Amino acid sequence: MIERLIKGYDLDKLAVATIASHTALHILRGAKLYGFRTIAVARPNTAWFYRQFQFIDEVWEADFSNFRPVAERLSRQNAVLVPHGSYVEYVGWRQALEAPVPTLGVRRLIEIEADQFKKMGLLERAGIPTPRVYNSADEVTGPVIVKLFGAKGGRGYFFARDKRELAERLANLAEPHIIQEYVFGVPAYYHYFASPMYSRVEIFGMDIRYETNVDGRTFGLVEPSFVVVGNLPLVLRESLLPTVQRYGEAFAKAVRETLGEDMKGPYSLESIIKDDMSIVVFEFSGRIVAGTNVYMGVGSPYSVLYFDKPMDMGTRIAHELDEARKRGALERIVS
Amino acid sequence: MIERLIKGYDLDKLAVATIASHTALHILRGAKLYGFRTIAVARPNTAWFYRQFQFIDEVWEADFSNFRPVAERLSRQNAVLVPHGSYVEYVGWRQALEAPVPTLGVRRLIEIEADQFKKMGLLERAGIPTPRVYNSADEVTGPVIVKLFGAKGGRGYFFARDKRELAERLANLAEPHIIQEYVFGVPAYYHYFASPMYSRVEIFGMDIRYETNVDGRTFGLVEPSFVVVGNLPLVLRESLLPTVQRYGEAFAKAVRETLGEDMKGPYSLESIIKDDMSIVVFEFSGRIVAGTNVYMGVGSPYSVLYFDKPMDMGTRIAHELDEARKRGALERIVS
Amino acid sequence: MIERLIKGYDLDKLAVATIASHTALHILRGAKLYGFRTIAVARPNTAWFYRQFQFIDEVWEADFSNFRPVAERLSRQNAVLVPHGSYVEYVGWRQALEAPVPTLGVRRLIEIEADQFKKMGLLERAGIPTPRVYNSADEVTGPVIVKLFGAKGGRGYFFARDKRELAERLANLAEPHIIQEYVFGVPAYYHYFASPMYSRVEIFGMDIRYETNVDGRTFGLVEPSFVVVGNLPLVLRESLLPTVQRYGEAFAKAVRETLGEDMKGPYSLESIIKDDMSIVVFEFSGRIVAGTNVYMGVGSPYSVLYFDKPMDMGTRIAHELDEARKRGALERIVS
Repeated sequence: MIERLIKGYDLDKLAVATIASHTALHILRGAKLYGFRTIAVARPNTAWFYRQFQFIDEVWEADFSNFRPVAERLSRQNAVLVPHGSYVEYVGWRQALEAPVPTLGVRRLIEIEADQFKKMGLLERAGIPTPRVYNSADEVTGPVIVKLFGAKGGRGYFFARDKRELAERLANLAEPHIIQEYVFGVPAYYHYFASPMYSRVEIFGMDIRYETNVDGRTFGLVEPSFVVVGNLPLVLRESLLPTVQRYGEAFAKAVRETLGEDMKGPYSLESIIKDDMSIVVFEFSGRIVAGTNVYMGVGSPYSVLYFDKPMDMGTRIAHELDEARKRGALERIVS
Repeated sequence: MIERLIKGYDLDKLAVATIASHTALHILRGAKLYGFRTIAVARPNTAWFYRQFQFIDEVWEADFSNFRPVAERLSRQNAVLVPHGSYVEYVGWRQALEAPVPTLGVRRLIEIEADQFKKMGLLERAGIPTPRVYNSADEVTGPVIVKLFGAKGGRGYFFARDKRELAERLANLAEPHIIQEYVFGVPAYYHYFASPMYSRVEIFGMDIRYETNVDGRTFGLVEPSFVVVGNLPLVLRESLLPTVQRYGEAFAKAVRETLGEDMKGPYSLESIIKDDMSIVVFEFSGRIVAGTNVYMGVGSPYSVLYFDKPMDMGTRIAHELDEARKRGALERIVS
Repeated sequence: MIERLIKGYDLDKLAVATIASHTALHILRGAKLYGFRTIAVARPNTAWFYRQFQFIDEVWEADFSNFRPVAERLSRQNAVLVPHGSYVEYVGWRQALEAPVPTLGVRRLIEIEADQFKKMGLLERAGIPTPRVYNSADEVTGPVIVKLFGAKGGRGYFFARDKRELAERLANLAEPHIIQEYVFGVPAYYHYFASPMYSRVEIFGMDIRYETNVDGRTFGLVEPSFVVVGNLPLVLRESLLPTVQRYGEAFAKAVRETLGEDMKGPYSLESIIKDDMSIVVFEFSGRIVAGTNVYMGVGSPYSVLYFDKPMDMGTRIAHELDEARKRGALERIVS
C-alpha cells in the first residue's frame, strides 16, 4: 500500500510531517534546512506553541483517536511521517501500524514494542546481553525493576529491593507487566541511524535521561520514581564504541531476520554499563528517541565521524530523505 | 535620566560593558561579534585574567564600593551595561538601581529581588506555581529549605528534614531569611530572552546547577551544602516546553503589570519538576544567569528555534542591541 | 634523537598518528581538517571499527608488546604520534619513553606519572593544593580513597570510610598504592593546552567523569566503584576561572623547572571543588584526556576565548602542528 502511495507522490513537493511533541521541533527544523515543506500535527491545546516557529510551514490540529483521515490528508500533501514515541502514544499502536501514510523506518517494530516480552525477545535474538526476566516474584533473587506494558517515559516503573517487597507491590497490580533484574551500573542511551542510502549503521549520539525524582536530591526521604523529564548529553569511553557499534548492527540484523525488511532510520538501545565495562541492554526504541534533542541545532559529537559538520538527528533524517528523493528511492526508507 | 543619557550617545561608537565575572566572557565575546567595543570592569585581582582575551578591548580596574564614577565613565564611553548577579553582589542593589549608565533589562527588578518575599510575590502574581512559604517553624509540616536574604550562589542555604531540625537551626539565626517547602523532584533552570525588537519571549536554553557538595559523592557522611560551582546543559521533554513558555510569558506580563514597563533582555525561572510532571518555580533572576555559560560560543539547542544558527546568550544580547541601534530604539531595551 | 628524526621529515607529507582508542577519533578528525595524513594504530580486534571512517587514511594493526618497529615505521612515514592514556597503558611507560618517533608534548611526564608519589610531588612543587597523603593506615583520621599504581580509568580505586575499614581492605593488598584523604565536594576536570606557538596556556574545556557504579542509582545496595565509562560537559562559575588558569600555569612552570623543558600540548588537572569554593587537585594527566571527547566536532565553550570558532582538542592540536610546520618549529611541540 505504501509503495503505491509513494508512486503517486510529487517528489518536488515532498513534505516532512510529525506529531507536535517529543522531537518535533528538531525533526521539522532539520527538514526545513533541506528545503522540505514541514507540517506539525498538534493537539489543539499546544498548537499555539508550534505556530511561533518560522520553520514550521503548517500546524494542523487533529483528533488522534481517529487518525486515518489525518494520515490520508498527509498523503495527499506528499508527506513522509516521522514517527516518535508520542505519536505511538497518542494514536495507539494499532492505528500507527495501519495509518495510510509513508512512515519513516520499520513500522512493524511498533507491534513488537507493544509487548515487553517480544521486545526483549528481539534483543536476545540479536545476541545482545539483556537483564534477566523473571516470570514471577518467586524466582526473584535480588533487586528488580517492574515495568507496566503501557508505561511511557518511565511512569509506571517501580523498583523493588527484594522478593518480599516485590510480592507486596505486585499484590495490587492487575495490569500486564514485566519483572526485570535490576542491573547496577550507570545508564547510557545510544542513538543510531540505519542508512539505506549509505548502507551503514551510524552511531549518532548518546544521552542520559534526567528522571524525577531519582535524579533529584531526595535525601532518601521519598520513594524513587523514574519519570523522564529531560536529557543530558554524554560521550562514551572510546574503547566501548566498538561494542556499541556491534550491538547496533546486531539489532539491525535481527530486525531484518525477524521482519524480512531492512532496518532504516533512527533507533536506540537503552543500557546499563556495569563496572566490569560490560553493557546490558534493557530496552530499545525502533525510532527517534527524545534523547536526540540534546543535540538540536548544534549537532552531536559522533555525527562528525560521518559528515563534515555536526548534525542533529532531525537534519540527519532530512539528509537521508533528500538523498532518497534524489535517487528516486524513497520506498527504501519508509514503510 | 537614562533616556537623556542615551540621547547623547554616539551610536556608531556604542560599547558593551559588564563586570568581569559571572557571564562577562560570553557577553563580551558576543558583543565583539556584532562589532561593539567591549569593556570589562574588573576587580583589581582578576584584571590580569581578562586582559588575555582579544575580544575585550578594555579592562578597567574599579572600586565597586563607589560605583558612581565608573558608571559615569561608562556613559561617557557610550556604553550599555549588561548587569548580572555578580554586578549586583559587588556594587549592592542600591548602587545598581541608581547607576547613571544605561543598563540592559528592567533595572527595578533588582529591588524586588533584594527581598525574598517580594520576589516570591511577583511569581505568584504571574500565576506561576511556587513552593509554600512558611512564616515560622511552627507551621512547618515537612522538609524545608531555608535561604538567607543575602545568600548568593547557594551559600547560606540549608536543608532541614522536619520542624524539630528546623527549630534547632533557626535558634542561632539572626539574619533575614525565608523558609520554603522543600519540593521533591529534579531541578531545572530555564533561560528566557524577552525581545522588544521581535515582540516575543524566547526560550533560550536550560541548565542544571552543579552544586557542592550536594552533587558530589559524599556517601551520606557530610551535611548537604548547595554552593553553585558550575552548570550542566539540559534539554527538556518537548511536551513540557509549552508550559515553560507559558510561565516565561506570564512572568513578563507580571513585570509589566507590577512595574509598568516591558520585560526585556535575558531572565530565568528556577524550578523543580515533580514526578507528576508539574513545575514549581522557587526563584527567578531578572537578568542573565550563569547557566547560560554552558552554551558559550557553541550556542544553545533552543536558540535555533528562532535563528538560523545556534547562538549563545551573549550573542543574543548583542543581536538585540544591534537591532535596537539600527532602529534607533535603544531606549526600549535598557533602563 | 627526536630532533634528528624531525630533521629528516618531509614536512609536506607530515602525518598525525595515534593509537586507536581513547581520543583517537577526534585527534585524527582534527588532523584531517588541517590536511594531515592520518594513521590509527589499532589492536587487531578493533581495527574494523576505525576502518569505517573516511578521515582515517590508514589503519595499522600492531603488536603493542613490541612497539619499537611500529614507532620506526611511523617515523619513516613522517608521523607525529599523539600520545594518550591508552597508548601508555598498551605499550607500557618504558616503551613509551623510548619509542623512536616524535611524540606530542613532554614525554618525560610519563615517567613521573608512573609513580603516584612523584606525581603528587610535581603538583606540590607547583604550589597547587592537593589532598593529604597518608603513609599508612595508622595516620588516617577520616575517609580515604586508595589508588593502585597501575590503576587505569578508576579501576582499582576504592573508598574507605575510616581507619578500621581501610586496615581491613589493605590487609589483602600487596600491590603498590597511595592512600589519599577523601575530599568532599564535586569533581571537575580541567583541560589545558600549552601552546609554544602562541606562548600561552589555554583553558580549553572541562568535564565530569561518568563513573560506574558511583554515578548510578544503586540505592546504597552495592559498594561504590569508580570505573570511568564516559564524560559529561561542564562549565565553571566564571569567578573560579582565574584560579583554574593560575593552577594550569603553575603546573606548566613546575614542569619546566623539574624537567628543564617547556610544557606543550594538552594536559589536565583533576580536582574536587569544596563548598568553600577552594579547589583541591588530586591528579594530573600530562597529555590529552578522554574528557575532551565531550567537545568532539562541536568544539568547547572555552575554545572561543582564543579562536574565532569553537574547536575541539583534536583540532586544537592540529592547529598547533600546522603552525609549527609553517614556522619550521616542529621540535618545539614534540619530544
